[in-house]
Parts: sequence; C-alpha cells; structure tokens
Amino acid sequence: MHVHVNAAESVDGKLSTREREQVAISGPADFDRMDELRAGVDGVLVGVGTVLADDPGLTVKNDERRERRERDGAPPNPARVVADSRARTPPDAELLDDAAATYVLVSEDAAEADVAALSAAGATVITTGSGRVDLTAAFDRLKEYGVERLLVEGGGELIFSLFEADLVDRLTVYVGSVVIGGRDAPTLADGEGFTDPDSFPELSLTDVERVDDGVVLAYDA
Amino acid sequence: MHVHVNAAESVDGKLSTREREQVAISGPADFDRMDELRAGVDGVLVGVGTVLADDPGLTVKNDERRERRERDGAPPNPARVVADSRARTPPDAELLDDAAATYVLVSEDAAEADVAALSAAGATVITTGSGRVDLTAAFDRLKEYGVERLLVEGGGELIFSLFEADLVDRLTVYVGSVVIGGRDAPTLADGEGFTDPDSFPELSLTDVERVDDGVVLAYDA
Repeated sequence: MHVHVNAAESVDGKLSTREREQVAISGPADFDRMDELRAGVDGVLVGVGTVLADDPGLTVKNDERRERRERDGAPPNPARVVADSRARTPPDAELLDDAAATYVLVSEDAAEADVAALSAAGATVITTGSGRVDLTAAFDRLKEYGVERLLVEGGGELIFSLFEADLVDRLTVYVGSVVIGGRDAPTLADGEGFTDPDSFPELSLTDVERVDDGVVLAYDA
Repeated sequence: MHVHVNAAESVDGKLSTREREQVAISGPADFDRMDELRAGVDGVLVGVGTVLADDPGLTVKNDERRERRERDGAPPNPARVVADSRARTPPDAELLDDAAATYVLVSEDAAEADVAALSAAGATVITTGSGRVDLTAAFDRLKEYGVERLLVEGGGELIFSLFEADLVDRLTVYVGSVVIGGRDAPTLADGEGFTDPDSFPELSLTDVERVDDGVVLAYDA
C-alpha cells in the first residue's frame, strides 16, 4: 500500500488552535491541490479526533474529478477510513453518508454496541490490535478491500502513529504564513514523540513550491 | 529596534524532543547562516528555558566575522540577552563569561538574592513588569544600551510572547527534513497560543531557500 500524508500547518507546526477549532490555514489553490490528491487515491484516512472536531465528508469536491474517476471504473469518491480504536465515531457522522464506502478501524477493546451502531450506519468495521488499532494489520485488511493508495489527512496523533509504525511513503505539508502558537495546540505529529535522534524517521525533501500565501514542502519518507 | 527571530524546527514544528534534548535539526550551512546573523546584530536574545536546557554561549564562531565587527567599531560578539522573569539563570552560565556583555531581563518578582548573584557574575539586570518581564519596556531599556538590532534564537515560550506583544519584525525558520513528534515537545511558538484567527500575527513569506537537507522560510512580520 502507498500511504501519502497531506496536511496544512502554521509555520509553528500547528494544525489548529488549542481549542481545536478548524482554522483555514491554506487558501483556494491548496484546497484544489488536496482535492486532486483525494481524486487520485482509493481511500482517505483520518483519526477519530478529526471526525469529532470537524465532521468532514472527505469527498472529492470537483465534479470533473469525480467523473474522471468513474470513467476510470472507480467509484466517484474514494473510500473514507477512520482510525478509531474505541469506536467513538458518531453513527450520524458526515463520512458515514452514502457518498462513498466507509471503513472504521477499531481495536479489540471497542464496545460491541458502538461497533454494532457503526455497522448499522453502513460502515465496514475492521478490528485489529489490543487497546489501539494495529495499523499495519488494519492496512493489510484494507488492501483486501482494494485500498492500495491511501491519503492521510490527519490529525497529529494518527500521523505520529503512522510514522512510528514506519507506514508513511510520502509527506506533503502546506506551511501557512501564520503563527498559531500554543503549547497545547495540536501539531502535525503529536503522540509520545521520538526521543532518540537515531529513531527519527528519515525524510528526503523532494519539492518546494509556493502555493497561495505559503509553501508546500514535499518529502519521500 | 529591529527584532529578528531565527530558529530551526522539524517539519512538525518541534525545536527539540519532549525531553528537551538538544537535537541537531540543521546542518553546517544553516549553522553558518546563523553565525552570519549573529555577526550582524547588537544583541542575541534567548529565553531562560534555553539557557537551562542548552547553556549556550551565543557568540560568533567565525574569526573573520568577529574581526569584521571590530573593524566596524563594534565588540567582537553581540551582547547576550536572557528573558528570565524569575532570575533563574545560573551565575555560572556560559553566556555570563567575558566574551561579551550580558543583559538579564527580569520581572519585579525575581528574588533579590538571585538578581544580586547575576549582577555579581557580571550581568546587567534590567527589571520590568510584574510577574512576567514586560518585553516592550525591557526592549526600550536595551535600546538605551545601544541594542538596536536584536536576534532571537528561542525558545518557543519567548517567541510566542514576542509575537503576542507584536515585537517581531522578521522570522526565519530552517525546516529540517525530520519528524520529531510529541504532543509535549517544545514548538517554535508555545505559550497559551492564539485562539481567534483574527488575532493571528500576519506574516508575509519573502524567501524560500533550500539549505542543507532542508529549507529556510523567511517572513516579514
């Protein structure tokens, strides 16, 4: 599976404010870039924190891109995937609508009633790992459903877990020309953090492009 | 006064690990760029957290640059300045050596004995503000000592305070091709953080330059 992480951060690495309010860090050109990325994958993954904070639909916004997908024999929108160890995704979440297939990755510790509610809402629930989703095993299961190209849109807890599990192939970051600040504001990679410099994931900067009022940094991971 | 903030961060905005271990985020070309910046200012400012974590000397490393300063009638090294509300700078800190003048900015709540110890160690102590240093007033006092061009090298608490007080004129950030992660790791701008998007400091991206394995983003603030 090819895993591409894409996100927009402030110059100080924040995805939003400490109150986790959604902030428009990037502009129309970056939104369009993100829409093109979505149009090119089989699935779009977010963490449950992002679902609870923003309730995103994760669909392709541009009509021509959806039509292009259909001409290529794909569904108009990529599948939506949520990393959600304890099955906290609300059954009325936007990404459980009928615009695309939805997979919810849960751990063995998710409550049966919550899993049943998600299944009843139309989600395919994939159970791996104890306490936390085993992302490697979950991705293997996703591949069986035809998800070979996965775009990850955040948040920082999920992105850190993916780097920790060495599952990231590509990272693109829009760095907006804004300071958000806040020692408690969510960043591009949260979690426990790496402490041994020898264990830092190695990235290779491949492209630098000015987009809107900011810059997109692209890395192979 | 012209205030230039310069720092090196990981792609996720971290200045170091959650254990605040000093990490070499940038390489020799960026160190040289920083040395040139130091050589061009009257003072180099850091927060006391940086002094306690890294014990930096903050001097100009390159001989020719120090000689150039002396030919221009300046001292070989810029003054060292510490923002240190409670006068926690150890009297044996490296930046209290005799390589340059040292100013310690404290608040009215700093203990008299600590202030006296810093004075005895050779520092000029500047007292402003109740509880926290009043940075605007402290900078006015620094100007009286001839500090017109100030380079700020961190950490994130100080940098946030400077943006909050609208004291930053220029921001340059080396973004290293590394993920550090960690919800508790220090970032480029910590503090309380801004919550109202209308209050975010406005930055204007002026330059993007690849340096070492990363990129330097330069902003007017």
